[in-house]
Amino acid sequence: MSFVLIVGSGRVGSIVARDLLAAGHEVSVLDGDPLSHERLDAGQESTWEGAGGRFTIGQAIERDALVEAGIERADVFIAATNGDNTNLTIAQIAQKMFNVPRVLVRVMDPARAEWYGSQGMEIICPTSYAVTMFETALGLPGADG
Amino acid sequence: MSFVLIVGSGRVGSIVARDLLAAGHEVSVLDGDPLSHERLDAGQESTWEGAGGRFTIGQAIERDALVEAGIERADVFIAATNGDNTNLTIAQIAQKMFNVPRVLVRVMDPARAEWYGSQGMEIICPTSYAVTMFETALGLPGADG
Repeated sequence: MSFVLIVGSGRVGSIVARDLLAAGHEVSVLDGDPLSHERLDAGQESTWEGAGGRFTIGQAIERDALVEAGIERADVFIAATNGDNTNLTIAQIAQKMFNVPRVLVRVMDPARAEWYGSQGMEIICPTSYAVTMFETALGLPGADG
Repeated sequence: MSFVLIVGSGRVGSIVARDLLAAGHEVSVLDGDPLSHERLDAGQESTWEGAGGRFTIGQAIERDALVEAGIERADVFIAATNGDNTNLTIAQIAQKMFNVPRVLVRVMDPARAEWYGSQGMEIICPTSYAVTMFETALGLPGADG
């Protein structure tokens, strides 16, 4: 069991959070929008907190919010807000200031995804994926974004 | 060689457009923002038009714009704007009104991606991909969005 801190409770963050909690991990979610909490309850039998999840309201780029959300003992850090700049900034904070062992980041810009992927972060780039899928569907070999 | 109509010259649409053109396909791009044309020229030796590409400025949900962009003889239609509603609307127009043989659509909402995928469209859902990639990285089996 790992302690996973997820920043960003959007479509991606909230689904990953629920699935990880259901799989027995300890999961803490940080988001600046109180209403984003609703996504964590969606389709569940109990509330997010009732199921053992944690939720912190706060700005991801503020150190205090990250600490409150538990970054100091996180095994895994997931940056899944809607902004590349925010995701890359907080991922670097998690990696360099808090020494979180695993840092996963969603990056929409393929160019930045490639560069940061070479810096020890695990980068997930949905844009490159979409390009590859379209091109694969159309028979383009060796397609990548 | 196919004639491919791509609606939306954002990150995904423009890369797919350039790669398809380079692979010898005939490619027409439709976007409401004239500035989006710049993405088609990026990193190329010649301009988009110089390389044989077509670009039409117009609203994707207007029939005249689609006709001007060549939808009536398109072999493949790609809906890659930033909006799910727009993408699904124009994909249905391409499929039902213009009988385009292949219709590929980018859909960010996993729930809608699943439903429309059962309607004969080829759906590409970067959100589900991101969820799956995060969960696979964390060892969650059978992960899907």
